[in-house]
Order: sequence, then C-alpha cells, then structure tokens
Amino acid sequence: MRILVTGGAGFIGSHLCDRLLERGHKVWCIDNLRLGRRRNIVHLETHPDFWFGEMDVLNDALLGNLFAEVGFEGVFHLAANSDIAAGITNGRLDLELNQLTTIAVLEAMQAHGVKRLFFASTSAVFGETDKILHEDSAPLQPISFYGASKLAAEAYISVFAHTLGINAVILRFPNVVGERATHGIIFDLLRKLKTNPSELQVLGDGKQSKPYLYVRDLIDAILIAWDKMSGPLNTYHAAGIGSTTVREIADIVVASAGSGNTRLVFTGGDRGWPGDVPTFSYDTSRLQSLGWRPERHSTDAVRYAVDRILTVGF
Amino acid sequence: MRILVTGGAGFIGSHLCDRLLERGHKVWCIDNLRLGRRRNIVHLETHPDFWFGEMDVLNDALLGNLFAEVGFEGVFHLAANSDIAAGITNGRLDLELNQLTTIAVLEAMQAHGVKRLFFASTSAVFGETDKILHEDSAPLQPISFYGASKLAAEAYISVFAHTLGINAVILRFPNVVGERATHGIIFDLLRKLKTNPSELQVLGDGKQSKPYLYVRDLIDAILIAWDKMSGPLNTYHAAGIGSTTVREIADIVVASAGSGNTRLVFTGGDRGWPGDVPTFSYDTSRLQSLGWRPERHSTDAVRYAVDRILTVGF
Repeated sequence: MRILVTGGAGFIGSHLCDRLLERGHKVWCIDNLRLGRRRNIVHLETHPDFWFGEMDVLNDALLGNLFAEVGFEGVFHLAANSDIAAGITNGRLDLELNQLTTIAVLEAMQAHGVKRLFFASTSAVFGETDKILHEDSAPLQPISFYGASKLAAEAYISVFAHTLGINAVILRFPNVVGERATHGIIFDLLRKLKTNPSELQVLGDGKQSKPYLYVRDLIDAILIAWDKMSGPLNTYHAAGIGSTTVREIADIVVASAGSGNTRLVFTGGDRGWPGDVPTFSYDTSRLQSLGWRPERHSTDAVRYAVDRILTVGF
Repeated sequence: MRILVTGGAGFIGSHLCDRLLERGHKVWCIDNLRLGRRRNIVHLETHPDFWFGEMDVLNDALLGNLFAEVGFEGVFHLAANSDIAAGITNGRLDLELNQLTTIAVLEAMQAHGVKRLFFASTSAVFGETDKILHEDSAPLQPISFYGASKLAAEAYISVFAHTLGINAVILRFPNVVGERATHGIIFDLLRKLKTNPSELQVLGDGKQSKPYLYVRDLIDAILIAWDKMSGPLNTYHAAGIGSTTVREIADIVVASAGSGNTRLVFTGGDRGWPGDVPTFSYDTSRLQSLGWRPERHSTDAVRYAVDRILTVGF
C-alpha cells in the first residue's frame, strides 16, 4: 500500500514509519522538522520503499502535487504541535498545526480520492475530569489549546467521514514514552539532570498521575485499529495499564541517571503548567476488543523508556 | 451594562438587541451585513443607547479599537454563517465565520479584560443520533461543517473559560423561527410560493422532524442563562416542546399563503441537503431548572412565525 505519514520524522511518526516498512508498505514521510528530527529517520533513508520530504502540510501546492504524483492509498496524519505546554502561550499555534493541517489533509484526500485516514488525537480533548473515560464520554471541555485544536480536528474528520465518504480512525493517545521523544516529561527531566546532576526541578507537586504507554505498544494499537477500520468513523482510546505519578517518574529518572544524591525540587501546585490535566484514566476496552494488549504496564513503560533513551539516545 | 452584540443585525441578533435595550443596557451592535440586514435594526438607530457599526469580527484592528474605546462588560457572540446548507459546499466558510470569529472575540475579550460571553451554538454539534440529547450527551460527531465549526468554537471557549478566566454561556439553539429570519425553511417556502403559488417544492421527503422555537422564547432562554451564569462554563439546550415535520410546516405555509390549490412536490430522500440532520430531540431540563418555559409548542411556534412574517414581512 502507498502510505503517507505526516509528521513522520517525529517521535511516534518515525516509529510508525519503521513498522509500516516492516509490513511491506511503501512509505512517504513528510515533516517540516519543526519538532521532528532528521536523525529519527536517517536509518530509513536508504530503504528502497521509503521517501522523505521536508515540507509543511500547510503548503497547499506542495501537498497537492505530492497527492497527485503518488496516488496514496492511505494517510496517517501525525503532524502536530505535540508540545502542549508551548501551545498555551499562543492559541494560534495549535490551531494551525493541529486543526488546519488536519483540514488540509482531509481536503487533499477528498480532492484525490484517498479514502483511509488515521488521526492521532489525545486525552486532552476531555479536559479535567475524574471519570474513567471511554470513547463516548462527555462533556468534552478541553482546558488547553492543544486539546481544543485536536477536538476541532476530530469534528472536521467526523464531517468528512459521515458526509464526504472518507473512512477514519481516531486514536486518542495517552502519554507516550520511548526513544526518539522530542519533548515530554522524561525528555525534560533527563535534559535538566544533564545540566545539573545534583538537583532536579520537577513541575507541579509530583502527584499528577497519568497512564503512560511505551511507543511500541502504541504503534501496535495504531496498526490494529487501522487494520480493523470499518465504517466511516472509528474512535479508540489507548493507554498502558495503571498509571504513574510524576514523582515516580522523577525517582526512576534519578535512579537511572542521577548523581547518587540528586535532590528533587518540586515547583508546587497541582499541575505542570496552565492547561495541564493533572490526572486522567482511560477505559480501553473498545480497543482491547480488537485484540490489542499493551505489553507493559504504565510504570514499566516509563522505566523501559528511560533505559532505552539512556542506551540509544533521545 | 455596556454590551457588544456581534451579528446584531441578523435574525436572532436583532431581536436580542431589542430586548437588551428594553432592559436598559447600552448596546453596540456590529454586523458585516453578509446575512444580517440593516432593516432588522433600522427602528433602533435613533435609540440613544444603541450604536451600529458595519464591520467584520475578523478585522482585528477594528475589533480591537472598538474594545479599547468602549470598555465592554459583556459580549453576545451571534455572528456566524447560520446558513447550514450553504456551508457544506465550502468547508472554509464555516471555519472562518463560526470558529475564527469566536476565537477573535475571545482574544479581544482577554486582551481587554472582558469577562462575560454568550455564545450561540447549535444542535448540529451532535450530528445524527436518535438519542434525546442533554448537554453532556455524546458522541459529538457533526455531519456538517456548520456543526463542526460550532463544536470547534465551543472547544476554544472551554479553554478560555477553564484556563484563562472568562465566564461563558453556550446555548445550543434548536431551529428558531420568527420574523426577520434571513434563511431557513419558512423563509425558503414562502419565497418559493411567491414565485410560483401553484406548486411548492419541498426538500427531502417531508418526514424530517425537529423542535422549532419561536424567537421570543429563544431570547428569554438567552437572557435567563446570561443572568444565571455561574462558574466558567455553562452549557444549555433550548427547544420548543414537541417537534414538527417538514410536511406539517409546508401545510401551514400553504394554508396561510398558498393559492388555494397549491401542490406540494417533495424532492425525496430523508434529508434536505448533505449534512442536514433529519431529526433530533433535546432534553431541556437544565434550562428549565433555571425557570425557563417556552410559551409556544413547536408547531404553534411555526404557525405563529408564519403569521408574523405575513403580517410584518421578513
């Protein structure tokens, strides 16, 4: 199958390219390298079925040419501003990079008769709630521009799916960890620790608690949802089993990469930044009914990700 | 109170301006007159507490100047592409007129310290479902760009409410009828009948069934929700009691304005246009718990609206 991966040089995108190639697909990877990094895909650049283009999804002309040239059979749209904290200071950033890129992809698909879309969404569409969230939970009241722009993108996908003939999978990602991460808590903590091994600043009070998923388990979820796509719109939640607090993550990072007597300093407050959802939990039974099981529990995923990053680099 | 009404020369906006002035507020009405009409507000133009400006909400500079000059204490954001059928042919129209105008208003409010927002949303955020819809129903899977853009606007309001200190009412309108309508089924049928009194073309099979609300009852709902706003985000559903089919509306229009032997011709299919939701029903108990009661049942509202339009003109 001829597949387009947008944001394919990013953390999750690059792992997805690996797996799609392993499956024998032909992969066109585009990335504007804003968050994505060439070194995440450098090992693929000699692969005969891999093509990389440094381009922006919002460049209509380039995107249209690519669609016209290749004749894609499916699109995995992962290009996004995945750095939630950065988005809160500039509401237009997430609007453009998360929602408008999605509309651009949908319009190109419609113009060129491409019928299958995968979309990377997020738990942040729900905002702050203590419910266990299944796919049809409500209300959806995002508290970050990241969450709002992803919810808006979902709404546009719904229209193209229900009214304009595109079939789509929306997978609402949890916190994902692993090597090649370009941001996120493990990335931040390891970077800080490198600068100052004796003291580690941790955002919030350390009690924020979320389910973490190792990237390979997420790619399994993406592929199983893709394979079993049926009907116009297919929404799923993926998460590791259990959850992990920020303090536990900090302890794991310090145990693996600290100085032996690293002191944790918490900035305080119940969240890392305005718009951070301090805790959520997912009901993933819909995805599990397709046969998906995460290999690692949340805290194991964090521990494994730290090991991998320290072994192979970011 | 110094109040801004965007889309104030439109159907609902102009009725709202009337009522806000009756209550003793000072009203600034802006409208780009794309769908709004000067004659909807011409009777207010000599009112000492009324100011009208022909301007576009998307003109940042003009909007910023107005906010800086007046020092608004509240904003009713009704400017929108309310013509759903028109939106389906051009996905960017609703994006701009419904979502981006809302973001522009929110940003101006934040920049100028305005804390209270009313937003006109819609049942179309839900898409097609046979559930009785309460405010926290899900899933939200719009099938029109109109519905998607309004859901996207709601998502952005949620962020400004929960994270940036604005208090908001979101009222999801049903189908609203009355004099000064600029589009909609009664408007369409009466216009067609004027051209050809002997035959009336009706979109769909006539079985589409929705709750209709007379505009005065809607304005009551807007004002009671506004008065009782508490906490960051307050979402309500408003609808008349019962519902009315398209065939019933056509019969009422023909009985009032037909030739005596007008023939109905149905275009067929279960909906008026792609993206039309053929039937929905609302649970309005949350709004009723504030003390709101519609004066007219759905079919009475349609009948009264036809009478009013034939008496006072569109």
